[in-house]
Amino acid sequence: MEPGADRRYVITFSCPDRTGIVARISGFLAELGGWIVEAAYHASDNWFFTRQAVRADSVPFGVDELRARFAEVAEEFGPDATWRVTDTGTPKHAVLLVTTEPHCLHDLLGRIAAGELPVTLDAVIGNHDTLAPLVQAHGVPFHHVPFPGAEDPKREQGKVASFEKVRQIVDGFEPDAIVLARFMQILPAHLCEEWAGRAINIHHSFLPSFMGARPYHQAHQRGVKLIGATCHYATADLDAGPIIEQDVIRVDHGDTVATMVRRGRDIERLVLARGLRWHLEDRVLVHGNKTVVFH
Amino acid sequence: MEPGADRRYVITFSCPDRTGIVARISGFLAELGGWIVEAAYHASDNWFFTRQAVRADSVPFGVDELRARFAEVAEEFGPDATWRVTDTGTPKHAVLLVTTEPHCLHDLLGRIAAGELPVTLDAVIGNHDTLAPLVQAHGVPFHHVPFPGAEDPKREQGKVASFEKVRQIVDGFEPDAIVLARFMQILPAHLCEEWAGRAINIHHSFLPSFMGARPYHQAHQRGVKLIGATCHYATADLDAGPIIEQDVIRVDHGDTVATMVRRGRDIERLVLARGLRWHLEDRVLVHGNKTVVFH
Amino acid sequence: MEPGADRRYVITFSCPDRTGIVARISGFLAELGGWIVEAAYHASDNWFFTRQAVRADSVPFGVDELRARFAEVAEEFGPDATWRVTDTGTPKHAVLLVTTEPHCLHDLLGRIAAGELPVTLDAVIGNHDTLAPLVQAHGVPFHHVPFPGAEDPKREQGKVASFEKVRQIVDGFEPDAIVLARFMQILPAHLCEEWAGRAINIHHSFLPSFMGARPYHQAHQRGVKLIGATCHYATADLDAGPIIEQDVIRVDHGDTVATMVRRGRDIERLVLARGLRWHLEDRVLVHGNKTVVFH
Amino acid sequence: MEPGADRRYVITFSCPDRTGIVARISGFLAELGGWIVEAAYHASDNWFFTRQAVRADSVPFGVDELRARFAEVAEEFGPDATWRVTDTGTPKHAVLLVTTEPHCLHDLLGRIAAGELPVTLDAVIGNHDTLAPLVQAHGVPFHHVPFPGAEDPKREQGKVASFEKVRQIVDGFEPDAIVLARFMQILPAHLCEEWAGRAINIHHSFLPSFMGARPYHQAHQRGVKLIGATCHYATADLDAGPIIEQDVIRVDHGDTVATMVRRGRDIERLVLARGLRWHLEDRVLVHGNKTVVFH
Repeated sequence: MEPGADRRYVITFSCPDRTGIVARISGFLAELGGWIVEAAYHASDNWFFTRQAVRADSVPFGVDELRARFAEVAEEFGPDATWRVTDTGTPKHAVLLVTTEPHCLHDLLGRIAAGELPVTLDAVIGNHDTLAPLVQAHGVPFHHVPFPGAEDPKREQGKVASFEKVRQIVDGFEPDAIVLARFMQILPAHLCEEWAGRAINIHHSFLPSFMGARPYHQAHQRGVKLIGATCHYATADLDAGPIIEQDVIRVDHGDTVATMVRRGRDIERLVLARGLRWHLEDRVLVHGNKTVVFH
Repeated sequence: MEPGADRRYVITFSCPDRTGIVARISGFLAELGGWIVEAAYHASDNWFFTRQAVRADSVPFGVDELRARFAEVAEEFGPDATWRVTDTGTPKHAVLLVTTEPHCLHDLLGRIAAGELPVTLDAVIGNHDTLAPLVQAHGVPFHHVPFPGAEDPKREQGKVASFEKVRQIVDGFEPDAIVLARFMQILPAHLCEEWAGRAINIHHSFLPSFMGARPYHQAHQRGVKLIGATCHYATADLDAGPIIEQDVIRVDHGDTVATMVRRGRDIERLVLARGLRWHLEDRVLVHGNKTVVFH
Repeated sequence: MEPGADRRYVITFSCPDRTGIVARISGFLAELGGWIVEAAYHASDNWFFTRQAVRADSVPFGVDELRARFAEVAEEFGPDATWRVTDTGTPKHAVLLVTTEPHCLHDLLGRIAAGELPVTLDAVIGNHDTLAPLVQAHGVPFHHVPFPGAEDPKREQGKVASFEKVRQIVDGFEPDAIVLARFMQILPAHLCEEWAGRAINIHHSFLPSFMGARPYHQAHQRGVKLIGATCHYATADLDAGPIIEQDVIRVDHGDTVATMVRRGRDIERLVLARGLRWHLEDRVLVHGNKTVVFH
Repeated sequence: MEPGADRRYVITFSCPDRTGIVARISGFLAELGGWIVEAAYHASDNWFFTRQAVRADSVPFGVDELRARFAEVAEEFGPDATWRVTDTGTPKHAVLLVTTEPHCLHDLLGRIAAGELPVTLDAVIGNHDTLAPLVQAHGVPFHHVPFPGAEDPKREQGKVASFEKVRQIVDGFEPDAIVLARFMQILPAHLCEEWAGRAINIHHSFLPSFMGARPYHQAHQRGVKLIGATCHYATADLDAGPIIEQDVIRVDHGDTVATMVRRGRDIERLVLARGLRWHLEDRVLVHGNKTVVFH
């Protein structure tokens, strides 16, 4: 394959459903000579969604010009249409938030090092510093932002200050993804809002079962026969944001909370890695509290 | 295999945990010359559980004598020990409760007809009669017990009377399993109690998610990426009884409630069939609100 | 939903890949005012595939006229383009071939009776007659076509004559699907050819593992930890035709051949039902020895 | 939990099947006051297998004395009985063999660092040195043993010499597990023999499908709908040794060889990690070319 032959321009678009949308968009691309390598459509609840990937070398100009031209097409579909045009030749950026659990961090670092995930990791922020050496060994800057403990009399104020520091670091990178890789602090509402559609959380249960704290304890208590994990966009409503991906594994009566925790990690790692990949590849379109995932 | 070589005596036993239980039980069986073909143990929360299957032709007497002798062993472990000795040569009996959804009924009838499930089906009871022909085509008696509709002014009294009729029919058979095969009526508390450990329900969600009515609508609303089914013992606490088996299948944004309903049936059928099989084979031991399933 | 609002015209189309195909087809549909409810595309190995489903009530004429008009579009893409236009308002027809194993037959009859599969079952043909009562209880004609046994000195001639009878019955219905639902006879090459793309087989292994006879014995012998089933188009090359669907379940050292056979049935049923559904819904496009399945 | 309360003595034992084995072993343990926390039994093909885990602090002496006493019990069951008594307080040791693919190595290093796998990693040996920095960053010695390339005229002699170096390094550690973590060299027969039951390979297909080279290419060519991985003991018969664990994931027509390779890594990692854990926990008993896995 010649250099750049796998570079794509990716268009995502959604608007109120009606006839002729596919024809308009594909006609637009055909006029440019755009070679479509992936095209997916979906319509539900009177809303239309599409994702198109075209070979960059089939379009006679760059992504900025394509964006400008597509803006005119999108405008025809009214003020509710939302869209994005990205270039896989421009790497996405991410920041990770962690506490002390290493497994998701470790997995993502490994995938990024192996070139498996199309992302540049700008920084890892931890409210503890135990994971700093691991991060730095991968050549990634680690920022330690301590959070006040449960016994701190000024805990609430302290948290506000800590989150403000986190926000400053994160926003300095303008990242495409802010990944809560087992970050054991609840994101305040204003950050959920500011980072809407970019803050990705991994919750260690098959939501909506076992929301909140200690989901494996809850699962053990209830005696379920499968445990799971959920990758979702963080919203102000805890553990209730749009779900990107979920998966489960089988447990049985022989599993303790400890073995559930250990075995659940395998699912957390996979579900987060898949959800993050789809997000970075512009495969996830959010509509209301649900997602369309074109994978 | 000579006739009867696959006949088993099955012992299930549980009691407060301590040392020497395995030795006592296996010693007891060894003295009899009992040929153990399956043996499973489990201990958790200071409780001990076991299931043993021995070749019937290796024991020098019948199941009644074995039961009498084992009773003496069990007594050594105190008043909290619970146990059962069954003979796979004596078929288990079941009664099915249905409404109008045919898929679980049809699946169970097919499995029983093919000799896949070790059970005699004594009767099917329906609060509608639409499934009667299917049942009768399999040579199984169908009992129609109408229930008062939502508009009936004396609905509560009517339900009491209907459930009393159901109870009489069921109890006439003394069944080992009362299967709620998509029976769309909530079992009253006194029947849950009377049939404790024998009334088996299939719920069309991955509990504890989406308890109660219309779980597929709830799942669609929430935008989950997997849907499931749960087979559990019915208790007075709706959809909260001990879970025997669960499973899930993948759905995506393209699924409507209608396709979830259709695709969910495949999981409901499988989960109910597995749960019922394990119950009939004495593989399920209930402890508190959880199960130990030796499969 | 008004009557008929869920009736669709389904277009499948494939041809050598180039730019502008999507635009041409979607432009064609847009001109007609066609309301696309499902659209899927795929390109690989320089070949392009698509499936489009449009609301029948959005097109101002019937399927014949649509077919005639689409033929002109298809022609633009050269002699290698293959396509089909079908109407979900015209039910598909199927014939089943069986031997004595009832589980797949039973499952399909149940699904068809429950309206789960969009097909009219014209006949079941058995080389034994044991399944006749079950078939007839569903109001479906059963044709018994005996095949010569292993000891028959004129076995080969007898098989030729039996297959000729089968062919005559099948071809009398011009079915869209000829389903080998655990039919334990190898289809001769000329029938594979005549019924290419319509003869659907269920093989009781995860192909290409364990081709040929007694796959569960082979699986047990090898000590695999998962067993599976494969739904594929029958071709002259035994168990090597284009695969439509596969799935697996977990087994372990405790499984005997007999329990593998029993547990494998659950997967055979599901895999065949899914594969057949996709075939009937025109979701399967065959290219060389592989399939594109738009589900 | 008091220190050491989770330390176990693990007994595995197998012999020709007969009555009274369970009683003898559990009686032996009961006499010692051994508190059994896990006990599993299996019998097939006239062979008996068991694994028992007892609390170390419930036995009045150390593992050497237990081993000596159990030897006498084992002897009663004839010369074909094989057994082992291990102490979870004595860590197992492993050596890893790698080439250039980092994903399995990286996953195992992460699990070991997180205390998820009960093993001490003594060394990693690579026939290339590209993975050395990653290994050394975890504080594990890396040994580079180059192998002659395909163009080397004295390739066969060179391989013999290289394998001899590998053997010397490995045998210097007397490891409990020699893990071929995507080691792209075929182990010679004499090393398979010497390391029988200790050399663990991960093969990137669902064996016995796609043995040998480039299994993802083979899978893509065949058009299978699931790809898998197999963890097995290495034997002189390539890719045909006793299978410890297998798993699969779904692929479809949209997958290229490259995406199969990427997605297959998720299964390779998991299957190898599970298989290795079970091996290290003495859960895997080999009999002929099959395994009994007590998990």
